Parts: sequence; structure tokens; C-alpha cells
Amino acid sequence: MIDYQEILEEIYEEVTKHYGEGRVADYIPALSEVDPRQFAFSIVTKEGDEYHVGDSSVKFSIQSISKLFTFTLALDIYSRELYKRVGVEPSGNPFNSLVQLEYEHGIPRNPFINAGAIVITDTLINHYGDDYKAFEVVLNFVRDLAGDSSITFDPVVSTSEMEHGFRNLSLANLMKSFDNLDNDPRVVVQTYFKQCAISMNSRELARSVLYLANGGVDPVTGKEYITKTQARRINAVMLTCGHYDASGEFAFHVGLPGKSGVGGGVVAVVPGEMGICTFSPALNKYGNSHLGTLALEMFVEKSGFSIF
Amino acid sequence: MIDYQEILEEIYEEVTKHYGEGRVADYIPALSEVDPRQFAFSIVTKEGDEYHVGDSSVKFSIQSISKLFTFTLALDIYSRELYKRVGVEPSGNPFNSLVQLEYEHGIPRNPFINAGAIVITDTLINHYGDDYKAFEVVLNFVRDLAGDSSITFDPVVSTSEMEHGFRNLSLANLMKSFDNLDNDPRVVVQTYFKQCAISMNSRELARSVLYLANGGVDPVTGKEYITKTQARRINAVMLTCGHYDASGEFAFHVGLPGKSGVGGGVVAVVPGEMGICTFSPALNKYGNSHLGTLALEMFVEKSGFSIF
Amino acid sequence: MIDYQEILEEIYEEVTKHYGEGRVADYIPALSEVDPRQFAFSIVTKEGDEYHVGDSSVKFSIQSISKLFTFTLALDIYSRELYKRVGVEPSGNPFNSLVQLEYEHGIPRNPFINAGAIVITDTLINHYGDDYKAFEVVLNFVRDLAGDSSITFDPVVSTSEMEHGFRNLSLANLMKSFDNLDNDPRVVVQTYFKQCAISMNSRELARSVLYLANGGVDPVTGKEYITKTQARRINAVMLTCGHYDASGEFAFHVGLPGKSGVGGGVVAVVPGEMGICTFSPALNKYGNSHLGTLALEMFVEKSGFSIF
Amino acid sequence: MIDYQEILEEIYEEVTKHYGEGRVADYIPALSEVDPRQFAFSIVTKEGDEYHVGDSSVKFSIQSISKLFTFTLALDIYSRELYKRVGVEPSGNPFNSLVQLEYEHGIPRNPFINAGAIVITDTLINHYGDDYKAFEVVLNFVRDLAGDSSITFDPVVSTSEMEHGFRNLSLANLMKSFDNLDNDPRVVVQTYFKQCAISMNSRELARSVLYLANGGVDPVTGKEYITKTQARRINAVMLTCGHYDASGEFAFHVGLPGKSGVGGGVVAVVPGEMGICTFSPALNKYGNSHLGTLALEMFVEKSGFSIF
Repeated sequence: MIDYQEILEEIYEEVTKHYGEGRVADYIPALSEVDPRQFAFSIVTKEGDEYHVGDSSVKFSIQSISKLFTFTLALDIYSRELYKRVGVEPSGNPFNSLVQLEYEHGIPRNPFINAGAIVITDTLINHYGDDYKAFEVVLNFVRDLAGDSSITFDPVVSTSEMEHGFRNLSLANLMKSFDNLDNDPRVVVQTYFKQCAISMNSRELARSVLYLANGGVDPVTGKEYITKTQARRINAVMLTCGHYDASGEFAFHVGLPGKSGVGGGVVAVVPGEMGICTFSPALNKYGNSHLGTLALEMFVEKSGFSIF
Repeated sequence: MIDYQEILEEIYEEVTKHYGEGRVADYIPALSEVDPRQFAFSIVTKEGDEYHVGDSSVKFSIQSISKLFTFTLALDIYSRELYKRVGVEPSGNPFNSLVQLEYEHGIPRNPFINAGAIVITDTLINHYGDDYKAFEVVLNFVRDLAGDSSITFDPVVSTSEMEHGFRNLSLANLMKSFDNLDNDPRVVVQTYFKQCAISMNSRELARSVLYLANGGVDPVTGKEYITKTQARRINAVMLTCGHYDASGEFAFHVGLPGKSGVGGGVVAVVPGEMGICTFSPALNKYGNSHLGTLALEMFVEKSGFSIF
Repeated sequence: MIDYQEILEEIYEEVTKHYGEGRVADYIPALSEVDPRQFAFSIVTKEGDEYHVGDSSVKFSIQSISKLFTFTLALDIYSRELYKRVGVEPSGNPFNSLVQLEYEHGIPRNPFINAGAIVITDTLINHYGDDYKAFEVVLNFVRDLAGDSSITFDPVVSTSEMEHGFRNLSLANLMKSFDNLDNDPRVVVQTYFKQCAISMNSRELARSVLYLANGGVDPVTGKEYITKTQARRINAVMLTCGHYDASGEFAFHVGLPGKSGVGGGVVAVVPGEMGICTFSPALNKYGNSHLGTLALEMFVEKSGFSIF
Repeated sequence: MIDYQEILEEIYEEVTKHYGEGRVADYIPALSEVDPRQFAFSIVTKEGDEYHVGDSSVKFSIQSISKLFTFTLALDIYSRELYKRVGVEPSGNPFNSLVQLEYEHGIPRNPFINAGAIVITDTLINHYGDDYKAFEVVLNFVRDLAGDSSITFDPVVSTSEMEHGFRNLSLANLMKSFDNLDNDPRVVVQTYFKQCAISMNSRELARSVLYLANGGVDPVTGKEYITKTQARRINAVMLTCGHYDASGEFAFHVGLPGKSGVGGGVVAVVPGEMGICTFSPALNKYGNSHLGTLALEMFVEKSGFSIF
């Protein structure tokens, strides 16, 4: 029997020695002002047991972790059709590269790079009729997963993203020029930024990925969100594409499906066991949480968990 | 209790209906003359039980599956040092792309693209002193894993590869120009082609990857080849990089670590359970066995195995 | 003494046999509806003599030929400073490639690819305070060069361009993300499309490039627009970069500085002698006027003109 | 009447103040040991008058200037057929880039980048039957042009190039893999390195490009080497492609067709007037002679020569 709380506390003690390493995302003021000396590690098991350490009640911007939730929604709606508009291959390039998108005629490599997530948002706007409704669905989905109806987004963050979001607008316009975007690029990008600006803490995020550890069904509430096969496939895409240009490294060193965000969060899934979230705002050179990644490496070493 | 033999027979019946689809590798005569209407599926479990169907005694050219064995040897010798010369990231490009290699200053993305495997061979030549000795070690390693000392390579294939191997020579010379090759490019490429020309059948290959399903230890003989962590990491690299530009698709649809070769073989690993090999010479558009890939998709569906 | 009128009539007879070859630009309705069976060739010599053949009074959209005029204005204003924001190297890529722009951190290769011309428009907006004023200056400059104050732009064309201009918006947003655009990308692109939508005929265009054949001074009016060195340099950039990815071909086969537009116009300069404009809407595979290019090849052959 | 000797002496005085700037090519010992503090400027006019300043009798390795001579020979033999195997477009990339060559299926952009010159050498080997004969023809052509039968190549340089020529071997093997090389890549590259290792001084080189200033005919001996059109076209390719990734800059600042070599030589042509050669071994960041380029800029400013 593994004592998770003890493991988390050991990890906390070790990784917080690394405070000061890495750099907080600085492309928008709302993110650059976050205190880098924060760390949290949360576990929610299939049985519903929770283990937390550190700043697990601090809300942060989930950023790219939102791609996991929108991909889940779009996969549920469109199924195989979705793959005409977005692939499931690792990109082998930074998360916001235009080069590959141009060579591949506006079809993004996977739903976890920015271009792919923007396409996913576009498909949700199509399905739900308008951008407000689509965003509402995303927000309600996250609230439902986390079991907390108070979750919302930070308009300061999303507005600031929009003011500095020229590269994402460039990606969206490029896809539009290839007919792989149905709605106005500005509207899609704005909606995308709103979903990225959703604020959650590590407790909520660990809880909200639990359905992926349990074949698409929330083991606590019994709600069935997606099929077992879909859950496995989302995990597969997380493993191969979840950390941008460091996805191979993460698979290699951590060996669990995971998804990071520049807000400092990283979620991970131990299939059949638990949902995990780490949080620490300072990022490594690949744009993934420095302490969060270290902590997950320690966790798999101490717990012995690995999908391999 | 799963009846593997029954599953294999069902798969055999279903996939052989697809005979005629796909194309045999045609860049060298020795491969293009192989009869495309062949199919085999072999399983060797941790307990040493074997299940086979189809042409499981037919020897074929293991080609890129050899990269798995040379990577294992090099990882065992060099450990972390190895990563200065080859990465573990998916390439997002075809297996023999020069573009990425040039942009990344001669450091191949991973050991399973051609450039990476050529570097691995170079490290083995360094360690064992000369190319003949290095190749002997590789061959003996494969013989030991498969438990069959008669395994050898086909000089007709390796000579033919060399006569048509200008792109691999181009890769090797490019890496040499970036100081990431210590030996004569021609000698390294020739040795690489010899290892690719090793002939094995699906029985032997399923057996020879069993150590990767069992934490680096052959569960039948008890021989410890590599550590548990190393075995997991090799599996991780197989999952993210084992099928070139279709690695994401394979992870998505099959969900097991695997490695394919243009000779028509595909090996896969169910961690904690079994080694697998499928064989069918006709390839899909990504250069992976068409029927072999289909068969593995069916297998995971029927057996329920997935690392996710 | 060369009989230019005779040469033009010979060319007319020969090239109009090729009616039906090539394709009219079809990315916007306003251009795709142009009758492809039109051809004009106009010459204005340093002495002010004019020679015309064909549809030399038909107005057409000058499109990228406008880049020549905005570059002239910007070079006059900013001189060497300009080269911090745009280069003078051939791109070796299609006119609207994002790849190179991304690799080169948002600095366009030259002022004659779209990205470069968009930057040039941005500098003019900076200098003249707002986009309306900047466009007015461009329009007045063209009117002055052509000696015709009735020249104007076609709002149907510019509006249509804007509705389909997602790739240019992508380029502009990408440059903005690299801090190489000072104004709102939409405003800059809209202004760029207005300048592209200026309507002129071949008579006016041949007249309007005469200053480049005469060291920056209009030989008829005596107005000095730019210095001799600047005129030579603009000619040099036209020669190396004036026809996108077919600039080398044009230099090779025609051997004169020239600039083409997708509206079917091509202007060329014989230094010390004359300004030239051909017009024919059907384009070759490089996006340059098919008959216009042929006609210029015939012209240099018959006249013996070449800068080489 | 321009006093060329006076101009050359003024230039000499000015540019030699820049001794110490730039860097001698250091990729092979034979070149890195050259004294950087050397400078020569030679002119040979159509009338056969010669003007020299500085180290105009010092022999140096002509390197890429040899591409001009082999291109002339190949153009004369193959005419239009040649363009199936090599283009005439600026590359927009460094002289030895593999990226473009891969994307463009082994067809080099132009005969003045390394890949293009290697193809040209391959065509000469085809035509003359073997590599020794082909090289003899090249050497005799250069001797004939320069009017000096003692010109030869430096085997120390060519051997050293071969020992460090892995990138060129990579290019050659890549083209071979695309079926755009008929002979053994090693043999072709070796022959290419021999032609690059031809030693000449600025007097000889200025003399040897005179035919390009005079429509293909040596104005002194009356020998007709190529047609007027061919001479113009070679000049056009020199202008657009003669200085690798700085060809646009050279056209912009110097405005004459020219070709540089890493040995420090630069030849240029004033059509209808003269052949020019400058020499100074220290290179600028683009791999072109630093003082040689400066000197040519001064020369066109002082003399007023420009093709534009």
C-alpha cells in the first residue's frame, strides 16, 4: 500500500529547493506577475480519495490544459469526422509553429498545439451555433468534471492574451486561408483565449481528469462522458503530443499521459488509478512547468507508476 | 481468461481478406521480390507460452526493427551520455528527412529514424573497436534474445541496400559534417545495412522483445539485459517514435509500444504481459505493414490490451 | 534606328496566337471575371515618345506593381533605416510564404514579396500619420508619375481582396508578433489592398516607371523623385526580386529589371532608354502574365536591349 | 575619360585601412593559413588594356569562381537540356543548404550553389567520358581564357577539401538518391574539388572573364566561346545568384554581375566594357571577400558603372 501523502510531502520538500529556477511566462502582464515561488501537487484516486500538498487551493490560469477538455467535447460530437480537420501526430516543432501548418495545408498536426486547439474551438462554435454558447458549454463541462459550479475565467487574462495574440491570429488566418476555419478568425481566437483563461486550482484539475483514468466515466459520480476507446485515445494523444516539443522527453522521463499549460499547471493520468495535477508557475525552456515536471518524475520513481 | 489462439485465428481470417492492399517496399530488388500475400502473428507471453498464426516460420528482413536492438545495446553502454548525440523526441517528419537534421545541427531527433540509428551504430563501432566486432555483438545479442544461434543476415539484402543507399549516405555525411559521426560514413552505413538485413521470423521476433515487456529481464531465461527504468524508456521511445510519421496514429489506434520495419515486420510490447510480432510485406502509405497494423488494431480491440 | 512601333506590332501578332494559354487570377471574383483575351504593350522613351499596341487604354488592377511605387516612397523617406525592417534578398520562395518569414523572425526578404510590401505600407502609415493620408500620398504619387490626376482605385477589388485576404492577414499578424509592424494588422492590410487595387492602363504604367530608366528624374517633366543611386538600387531589387519565385527566370530570359502583378501587368525598365508595360490577364504558373512575359522576351530579342 | 589606375590606387589606399576585418576561410588548413592582409584589384578592358593594384600576382584558390567556367562549358554543350537538371533561380538560402534540395527533389536552384556546381561537373564527366578528361577540359578552358598555359590546381587544397568535404558528399549523395547524379558521388565531388583548387591571380581572372563582357567572344584573341545570348544569360545568373545568400545585396550595392569564391577572389563584369577581379582573403559573414566587396562598391561609385 503506497502512502501517497508521504510521497507528496517528500516531493514538496525536494522540489521547493528548486524555487528560483525557470521563468514565469512573460508574454502577457497577467501571467508575468504571478509569484513563481508556488508549488502544488494533487491526486484524486479512482476511489475518490484525495491527496494534496502545497498551494493546492491557489487558482491559476489553466491555459493549454483547456485543450484537453475542448478536444474531449469535440471528439464526443464529431467522432472520426474530426480527423479531417486535425491530426493526431506529434508535431516535432514548437507549439506555435507556422512552418508545419503551411507545409501541411492548414491541417494542424494535433489538437494540443495552438493551431489544432483553435480548429477544435471552431468546430465547437459550429456545433453550438455561436461563440458565447460554445464557451458556455466548455465552462459547464469543466465545472461538471471538477464538481464545482463556481469555476470561471479571468477576463483580464483573456483580454490581455487577445492584445498580444498576434501569432495565434496569424495561425487562425492561415488556416482560414486554407479553408480549415469556418468562423471569423478573431472570434475563434477570442473564444480560444477565454477557454485558456479559465481559472482552477490543482485540486479541481486533478479531479477533472479523473474520467480519463477510468475509461471515460467519472468513477465518483458515475457519469459517462466518453467511451473507453475515446478515453484511451485522448490519453494516447496526450502522451505523444501533450508537451509540445518536449513530449518525447515527458514520455521518456515520466511515462504517463499528461498535458501542460503555460500558467504552470500540468495534469497527468495514471490509467485505472488516478488523476494528477501539479502546479508551479516557473517554466522550463520548453514552456512546461519546471518544478511540476520534476515533481512528476519524482512521483513515478517513488510510486513505480508507468504505463510502460 | 483470454484465448489468444482463437483471437489470432479470427484476426488471420479477417486481415487476409485485405491481401492485395498496400505495396511491398520496392527500393531494392531483394525486398520488392517478396510475395506480398503473407501474414503472420506471433505472441510470446511472460510465462513463455507461444501463440502463432499464419507464416510465422517465414524469415524476413527485420530492417528498422533492428534499431530497437542496437538502441538497447547503446543505452546499456552509454546511459545518459547517449543523449548528447541523439534525442528522444518524435520527428514529425518522414523517417529519412534531411531537413530536420540540418536545422538541428546533425543531432537526430530519436534513435528510430534512420539518422538516429546510424549514430547508434557509430557509437557501437566506437565501443567495440571496429565495425565487424560491433556487428557481431549486435547479431549475438539478437540470437541470445531469440534463443536461436542460427539467426544471421542476408548479404544480398545488405549489398543491395548499399548500392541504393544514397540517401542514408547523405544523412551520414551530413552528420559527419556536424561532427556527430566518429567513423567513416561508408563503414557506418554498411554496418547499419547489415543489421537491417538480419533475417528473422515472427516467432523469433516476438520472443526477442519479451525483455521489454518484463522490465529488461527475459522472464524465461532470467537474463537481465537492462534495468527496469531503461526498459520503460525504450518502450516510451517506441510509443512516441516507433512508426516514423505515423507514430501518433499507432499510439492512437493500437495504444502499445511498437516498432515497424519495411520488411513487413512490426513488433509490439504489452508491458507486464507479452511480446508480439506481426508480419506482412505490403506496406501502407507511411511505410508500415498494412495488414500488420490492421491486425494489431484488431488484437487490442479483441484482447482489451492498451497501455492507456 | 529601331522601329519600335513595328516591333510592337510583330509582337502583338505573335503573342495573341497564345490567347487561351495561362489562367486569370481566380482568388477573388473581381479579378476572375476579367476577359483573358486582352493584350497591350506600351513603351515611353526618355525623349517622351510613346509606342502602343493592343488594349493599351484598358484599365486593370496594378496589384503588386504598386509595390514599386510604395518602395520608392519609403526609400526616399527612410533611406538606409528601411533595411532594418525589410531586406533586399531574393526569397527563393513563393510570394506569400510564411515559412521564411517565421525562420527570419518577421523580417521579410525584400519589399516585393507580400510581407515586405505590407511592412512598407506600415512605414508609410507611420510617416504620414494615418492610413488614409498614407494612401492619398501613394495615389498622388502614382498620378504625378503617370501625369494623370484621374487615376483612382477600385473599391470593389480592394473590398473583395480583404474578404479573401486571410493569408496576408496571417503574414501581417506574424510580423506584428515579431514587432515588425507598428499599426493594426487589419488597417495595414486594408491600405495595402487599396494600393493594389489602383487601376491603370499600360500607357500610364509605362510612363510612370520612366523615372527609373532615367536615374530617378522624370525626363519629360524634369521632376527629381529620388537619387540616381536609389533608382539603380530599385532597379537592382526589381531584377533580383521582381517576379517572386521566377525572378531568376525573368533575369535570364528577359534581362531587364521588371515587376509583375496578378492583374496581368508587367512593367520593365531599360536603363537610360525607356519605361515599358505589358498587359495580359492570363497568368503562368508563377503568377506572372503569360503573354506579357513572352512579349518581353520577344522584345529584348528583337530590340537587342539587355542590361547584361 | 576615366583614369582607372588612379581609381584603383584610391581604392587600394582606402580599403587596406580595413585590414584586420573579416575572417579567412578556416574549414581547411590550406585556406586558413593564407595571410589575410592581402589585396588586389585588376581590370582588363575590352581593348585589352590592363590596370592592376596590390597583390595582383599572388596566386590564390579560385574556389567557387570555377563554377562560372564549368557552367559556361556545360551551357555550351547541353544548351536548354541543362535546365532539366539545374535551375536559374536564386536560392534564398546558404550556399550549401540541403533543405531546399530535399524539398525540390534533388534539382539544385542554380549552378552557383554547391549542389548546382556538382551537377554541372557531373554533366561534364558524362560528356567527356571520365573525370580526368573532364577536369583536363576545365583546366584547359581556364588556361585558354586567361592566356596562360601554366595555370594549374593545388592538390594540397583539393585533397584537404576532400578530407573535410562531408557536406558536399551529403549533397551529392542526396542528388544521387533523386537520380540527379549519373556518376559516383565521390568521383564527382573529387573532380569538383579539383576545379575549386585551381590557382590563379587577379590578373588572370580579370582576363578570363572578359568574354562575358563582350558577348561571349574574347575581344583580344577574337575567339568565340559562347553566343551573345548565352553570355548575357550567364551574366544574369551571376547577378541573381553569384553571391549565395548575399546576391541581392551585391546587386543592390555593386550593381554588376559577379561571382565570389571563399579563397578571397571576386570576379565581376561590366557588360561591353571590362572584366574585373578583386582579391582579399578575409571574408564577410556571407562568405564573400570583405575588402573585395568594399572595393567593388567603391569602384562603381567612382567609375559610375552600373548595369542599372
